[in-house]
Amino acid sequence: MTNEELLCSAALNSWKIVLGRFDQHLAALTDEQLQKQVAPGKNRLFYLLGHLTAVHDRMFPLLGIGERLHAELDEPFLTNPDGAIVDPVSASDLKKAWGEVNNKLTESFETFTTSDWLSKHTAVSEDEFAKDPGRNRIAVVMSRTNHLSFHSGQAILAK
Amino acid sequence: MTNEELLCSAALNSWKIVLGRFDQHLAALTDEQLQKQVAPGKNRLFYLLGHLTAVHDRMFPLLGIGERLHAELDEPFLTNPDGAIVDPVSASDLKKAWGEVNNKLTESFETFTTSDWLSKHTAVSEDEFAKDPGRNRIAVVMSRTNHLSFHSGQAILAK
Repeated sequence: MTNEELLCSAALNSWKIVLGRFDQHLAALTDEQLQKQVAPGKNRLFYLLGHLTAVHDRMFPLLGIGERLHAELDEPFLTNPDGAIVDPVSASDLKKAWGEVNNKLTESFETFTTSDWLSKHTAVSEDEFAKDPGRNRIAVVMSRTNHLSFHSGQAILAK
Repeated sequence: MTNEELLCSAALNSWKIVLGRFDQHLAALTDEQLQKQVAPGKNRLFYLLGHLTAVHDRMFPLLGIGERLHAELDEPFLTNPDGAIVDPVSASDLKKAWGEVNNKLTESFETFTTSDWLSKHTAVSEDEFAKDPGRNRIAVVMSRTNHLSFHSGQAILAK
């Protein structure tokens, strides 16, 4: 592998490792456990799963790699806080959506060349990107990996 | 910047962003708040801070970039669980140690060339590294960034 490939591969591996650990934790939870709050008065695991699915689903347009699969999750899990809206989806359907979104993202990342990773994301203009080439796809994926780690730390509290 | 530099810079930025957010949260906490558990029966913020300081301090030998600054934190914050040992350090000294360790790490990372980032870490043998060049310094730093994100998600629960 070239240096560029090794560096891109480190970022992709980091994404896969964090996702794999979260999925392992998720697989061990019953639907009842998904209804638990991570701490008193804080988000339920179910809400966190919806939130993470919506945030990851938004990566398709943000990275310019396809249409969203589950835009219907924004209102209950992004726009509104936990408890504001009756859950519009079952635990099994939400888990299915989570898996679909991440499998499709990971498949896409696996085809990325260095140039793909370093391309601008769609929330930045050509002019802004010319000034700051750090606003690229790999920065978005690292940020989402950290975001998933952040909520994984919370999810693990509600066993 | 070359592609290699852009890729290394993305990893360094990710480290700095996560660290900056954690530090911002930490700065807003009183010593009393540091004694709070992140959830009932879970680690105190104080313990998490000690744990993170010890884990980050271990990066000096792991990356082969210097001697440890605070090896005395391993026993209370890594070997033993929260509550097993009376805190051997004050909140202000622990915060100071945290800052020292991360400042020195970040200064070191800022001098890294691509070749430095892709060098093997010290916990892997030359033979193993030849088989898997992904066991490099950048993978360690990404892993620690995710680890810090993981505990940041917990720390934010105890306000």
